[in-house]
Amino acid sequence: MKIMVQKYGGTSVAGLERMRKVLSRVKKGIDEGYKMIVVLSAMSGETNKLIGLAKEFTATPDPEEMDALVANGENVSIALFSMLAKSEGIKAKSLQAWQIPISTTDAYMKARIISIDDKRLKVMLEENDVLVVAGFQGVDCKGRVTTLGRGGSDTTGVALAAAIKADVCEIYTDVDGVFTTDPRVCSAARKLDLISYDEMLELASSGSKVLQIRSVEFAKKFNVPVRVRSTFTDDPGTLVTQEDAMMEDLVISGIAFDRDQCRVTVYKVKDKPGVAAAIFGSIAEKRILVDMIIQNTSHDGYTDMTFTVSKGDLEQTMAILDGVQKDIGAESVQYDTNVAKVSVVGVGMRNHSGVASTMFKALHDENINIKLIATSEIKITCLIDEKYVELAVRALHTAFGLDKGQQAAC
Amino acid sequence: MKIMVQKYGGTSVAGLERMRKVLSRVKKGIDEGYKMIVVLSAMSGETNKLIGLAKEFTATPDPEEMDALVANGENVSIALFSMLAKSEGIKAKSLQAWQIPISTTDAYMKARIISIDDKRLKVMLEENDVLVVAGFQGVDCKGRVTTLGRGGSDTTGVALAAAIKADVCEIYTDVDGVFTTDPRVCSAARKLDLISYDEMLELASSGSKVLQIRSVEFAKKFNVPVRVRSTFTDDPGTLVTQEDAMMEDLVISGIAFDRDQCRVTVYKVKDKPGVAAAIFGSIAEKRILVDMIIQNTSHDGYTDMTFTVSKGDLEQTMAILDGVQKDIGAESVQYDTNVAKVSVVGVGMRNHSGVASTMFKALHDENINIKLIATSEIKITCLIDEKYVELAVRALHTAFGLDKGQQAAC
Repeated sequence: MKIMVQKYGGTSVAGLERMRKVLSRVKKGIDEGYKMIVVLSAMSGETNKLIGLAKEFTATPDPEEMDALVANGENVSIALFSMLAKSEGIKAKSLQAWQIPISTTDAYMKARIISIDDKRLKVMLEENDVLVVAGFQGVDCKGRVTTLGRGGSDTTGVALAAAIKADVCEIYTDVDGVFTTDPRVCSAARKLDLISYDEMLELASSGSKVLQIRSVEFAKKFNVPVRVRSTFTDDPGTLVTQEDAMMEDLVISGIAFDRDQCRVTVYKVKDKPGVAAAIFGSIAEKRILVDMIIQNTSHDGYTDMTFTVSKGDLEQTMAILDGVQKDIGAESVQYDTNVAKVSVVGVGMRNHSGVASTMFKALHDENINIKLIATSEIKITCLIDEKYVELAVRALHTAFGLDKGQQAAC
Repeated sequence: MKIMVQKYGGTSVAGLERMRKVLSRVKKGIDEGYKMIVVLSAMSGETNKLIGLAKEFTATPDPEEMDALVANGENVSIALFSMLAKSEGIKAKSLQAWQIPISTTDAYMKARIISIDDKRLKVMLEENDVLVVAGFQGVDCKGRVTTLGRGGSDTTGVALAAAIKADVCEIYTDVDGVFTTDPRVCSAARKLDLISYDEMLELASSGSKVLQIRSVEFAKKFNVPVRVRSTFTDDPGTLVTQEDAMMEDLVISGIAFDRDQCRVTVYKVKDKPGVAAAIFGSIAEKRILVDMIIQNTSHDGYTDMTFTVSKGDLEQTMAILDGVQKDIGAESVQYDTNVAKVSVVGVGMRNHSGVASTMFKALHDENINIKLIATSEIKITCLIDEKYVELAVRALHTAFGLDKGQQAAC
């Protein structure tokens, strides 16, 4: 049994005409001899409409009921698509997460997939041409509906492909694939034919929203090659795959950026064991994601601790630090919301020196001040003034030879 | 554990303000020491919106996927109401049918409840103040979502009350209770304080839409006293209960009518065994509900067979008869769509003669011709020209002494 998994996002299923386009793609897969698993998002706007309703009802919606609410958007998509397919003689069946089941943790609004019953899926695949699965949702051990967080349908798609050992996994979206950077910011951006899981992870975590980061983690863990492509064109898209399969030899694959960041600094904390744990332990308890963390060498036994959080988490973070500050005897806590991250990402930087200096020089040439620097094995990130973010992206894109028609520099 | 079941219809949950009103009623129940089970419909308009979407997608939506689609309206209501309740400190939990489960047959779009897991319900009731249950839906033995047909939320409410042996079962709607007839047609109509299950059944099957007929069958079968009342007033409503508990001693409790009827006549069929079975067997196979069936005495070994079906089923019925006509050697099949049913209903008619003649005289006095007559133990129904239906209802309402302030006649 040849199996293809396809995931379609909200813009791809918004209305009858678009669903017809999706159906014609699905039919092509059937004609090629594949059993199809099609993962659908809610029609674009529907999830936000449900969230809006909830916020109208209460300022602090209960997360468990929030998930029971927002999962309905996907339920509508899969039922409509299945009846459309059946009306054309295709054997289709809609599946909500509990009907498979896709088992998750009970961390409502950001649940993680624990297991997928692939045996039942295979039986149903044998009886049908296409299984139409609700993306974004799961069911926990108490039988409550969960959701996987924004973009969670990508993870549903990749996890299904991993569970059932699909031959092909395609993520359909409204862009042609993964770009060297956001084309809306840098017109010279170009589409990549190939990108490694690690690069994709770094790009996703630095603000590129083509794929949900957890879907990439899943793809890497289970070695599922994922093709990201557009519902609306015939472009083959970008293949996200293992590094050793990479054909291109770029030092840097892309420039990512993220405006949704705040810098928080805890000033003059004692440089002794347990201080970092005290600060970040309390924050982690509230499930706030901390990104860049920088601690410089200490002076006279004191140091400053700086990190970034997303803007939505700032208020809660400051409230937590207000309590922690006294415990650890810090002098003060300050924050800055007018900041943005820019990152250069590429597996090639492992074997090439000079990436950091090229990056710093390109920013300096544009008179952009660097507020924080953090590095990983395949990424360098700088925190800069938010107002310079587009300028920085374009400068780095050119500096690393990513512009269309340009030869790779560095 | 004192248990109260309340069901609220679509107009009662349409928007935040109305749900607040529902919540205040639910709170009252909690304050009185009840554990609450609240059954909600979809917000008014939502189910029709989903059906409209489906019809846009295909002229003949697959019933299984149709149910998977339309059940989402209720899912939205229960999640929103639960988060509203929780935001006010009430322990609430939303429950879709599969989460209880409410097991039904797999007759999609008109499924019947087979069983309800009352043990799990009781455990959940112990842990919560209120369980918020999606009306209208069920789950079949294959784990597919089903729905119970229009008005199915009433049946959900009564079935839950029966399963868990609730102390109180209230059906909230947008009218004050059960009326002697439709107040929009007859301004003299008055609310009944009490009505028997059998009378309610006859009223419902004759077009009164206050309660879904199956909910009344359920209530009768399991002897659940059901109070029908308005969400928007403090009127105590109408208690639907066993006949022996009846306080009022009306001969006739109400006048029902139904415009959604067609008369079909199969002319000159041989009066021999098997003919009726041939006609109605084929129609029943297609699950078409046949109402009045009249066969008069035969002449020369031939008779005419007349019955009524709802207007939506006429086309299919005629197609079936086209085939059957030759088999049974009937002369012709004709139909009439300009007809309506009017019925007088009352347990009192068992012990009172003259009900039929009072009815026929009242219609005759208004010059209304009677096309068909059918009787049950507690109901007499006449088929008349559709254009006379309001006139007939008012005339009968007066003739049987049902007008406000009037003394019972006959």
